[in-house]
Amino acid sequence: MKRWMTVPCRVPDHAAAAAAAERQDTLTKPPGSLGRLEALAIQLASLQSRKRPRVDRVHISVFAGDHGVAAEGISAFPQAVTGEMLRNFANGGAAIAVLARELGATLEVVNLGTVNDPGEIPGVRREIIAPSTANLRHVPAMTDDELDAAFDAGIRSVARATADGAELYIGGDMGIGNTTAASALACALLGEKPDVLAGPGTGLDKQGVARKAQVITDALCAHASAIAPREMLRHYGGFEIAALTGAFVAAAQCGLPVLVDGFIASTAALAAVALRPDARPWMIFAHRSHERGHGRVLDALQASPLLDLHMRLGEASGAAVAVPLLRMACTLHGSMATFAEAGVSEA
Amino acid sequence: MKRWMTVPCRVPDHAAAAAAAERQDTLTKPPGSLGRLEALAIQLASLQSRKRPRVDRVHISVFAGDHGVAAEGISAFPQAVTGEMLRNFANGGAAIAVLARELGATLEVVNLGTVNDPGEIPGVRREIIAPSTANLRHVPAMTDDELDAAFDAGIRSVARATADGAELYIGGDMGIGNTTAASALACALLGEKPDVLAGPGTGLDKQGVARKAQVITDALCAHASAIAPREMLRHYGGFEIAALTGAFVAAAQCGLPVLVDGFIASTAALAAVALRPDARPWMIFAHRSHERGHGRVLDALQASPLLDLHMRLGEASGAAVAVPLLRMACTLHGSMATFAEAGVSEA
Repeated sequence: MKRWMTVPCRVPDHAAAAAAAERQDTLTKPPGSLGRLEALAIQLASLQSRKRPRVDRVHISVFAGDHGVAAEGISAFPQAVTGEMLRNFANGGAAIAVLARELGATLEVVNLGTVNDPGEIPGVRREIIAPSTANLRHVPAMTDDELDAAFDAGIRSVARATADGAELYIGGDMGIGNTTAASALACALLGEKPDVLAGPGTGLDKQGVARKAQVITDALCAHASAIAPREMLRHYGGFEIAALTGAFVAAAQCGLPVLVDGFIASTAALAAVALRPDARPWMIFAHRSHERGHGRVLDALQASPLLDLHMRLGEASGAAVAVPLLRMACTLHGSMATFAEAGVSEA
Repeated sequence: MKRWMTVPCRVPDHAAAAAAAERQDTLTKPPGSLGRLEALAIQLASLQSRKRPRVDRVHISVFAGDHGVAAEGISAFPQAVTGEMLRNFANGGAAIAVLARELGATLEVVNLGTVNDPGEIPGVRREIIAPSTANLRHVPAMTDDELDAAFDAGIRSVARATADGAELYIGGDMGIGNTTAASALACALLGEKPDVLAGPGTGLDKQGVARKAQVITDALCAHASAIAPREMLRHYGGFEIAALTGAFVAAAQCGLPVLVDGFIASTAALAAVALRPDARPWMIFAHRSHERGHGRVLDALQASPLLDLHMRLGEASGAAVAVPLLRMACTLHGSMATFAEAGVSEA
């Protein structure tokens, strides 16, 4: 294990939460009537250790990596798309690029290894680990060194976010085949059956999903020896999934709240919590993906996402869509008048 | 019936919807993977009759009015709050004022009649109908003229919105006692029992809710002769509820999409659809309120709201919180690259 992964996570500031909760009850509205926006403001106060939290500065890192298991025909899209999408992120045409602009968020794209490597592209960081992982159906997806390199890509991304003054960290994924890797990893971490977690991904038909479940079943047999969370991540994961796991742990260690995207990011979060349970309080779950396995992973994390819009795109797109909710929760909390200030009668 | 209420509503532009749907399938994402954001963009295209819809200009009207039924002790807050909150809207301290600023939306506040009348306040329109409605437990809440005056306040608000170039109309409510009025109205319109629709409102305890349900039961007996939707609205409604009903009909008549807030606004929408079924396509439902009766009203409207954040504040606050979702749906639709533009392989 990388030594930094063993550092404890920060403890949220319960006094800040209590102060924020007290303020909420003085604002000109029936107590509790802003629902989850009140709870969000209080949670963010505890994570940012201030009475009036803000999420003006949002950092989004999208990690891209290819998967050896793509050779098994488990995706509706060709593997070349991972590399092709890097240019689309950098050019601003991908969903997450459009959303980051709309939010005024910092977007960085990290190429961790793509078979169809586009080479140097302005706006894309090259942190190549290998062209792709190995085929998890038969062999471990990563070596020890590759897994550590992916973790390190995660912590470096968080370091750039904190240096930039980020108040919220979002991690996204791009990698053809990565719902297969994430489903296999979640099966291993949760002791769950492949047909509970395997879904259509980018658009498989029923037969395709059955084939995907079979690939995962084969993998679970091949890697029965992987019983520690780190080993599971190494055997079933991907570069982008492990980078997200590393980033989520690192963010919790340095006290930066994380807004978790959909199925891939949540599975990385599940691995992060398996490695460091004290990372969990730093995670806010953005949305419930339409991908079949997400509900099971969310249940395991005792997570209630903010949105349920049937999205299943990845790239951090679901997390980006939830950012305005956090911002409005903070603005309401910070800017509403109290009963005393407004001269409004209480209940 | 006011003559303008009998004018047919605009018909959404199905060709614009088809063109928008076609564009969606060319964008660089798995088809359908933006979920309800895709459907929203297509719906807005059909309502705005353009291939690339926008909701930059948002108009919010909050209507305030007092309720005679407040005398029955069916609210956790004193009746004086309706008038007091007018000043809080105008001063920017109320939730909807904070949200409107955050969204860059136009907020107007209309005083239709408050017992604790604050008089002239900069930023509040005075369109006084009466200090309050009559007590619906025993007598009709409004006269014919009062109901028509409330409808007219609604259409005037829509006329100001369209003159201002609004691309989306939001209507909000303020009125101590108005969940009782809305619950009674919804019971009448839906033939439903009071204990299905009566909820805690601003914070009644169990006994308070039971008392509220009894008041509604008494009202349903007293007004059994009110069987047409307009008569139901007159007997059970309130100035702000009827103004919202008028506004929703008027918006549909002039082709302005409406984002419907929570329980009060949805009950006004239910009345609008009862009066003019062709108003329904112009309504987008923002959120599922925590108030008990909202689910039943939404079901009757076959509405699936975008958000479920346990909010129950009114004032259009839930609708305001959903505006960024519409904006992001439009921006993704209008700004994402197509597969051809980005040189990305298709499935």
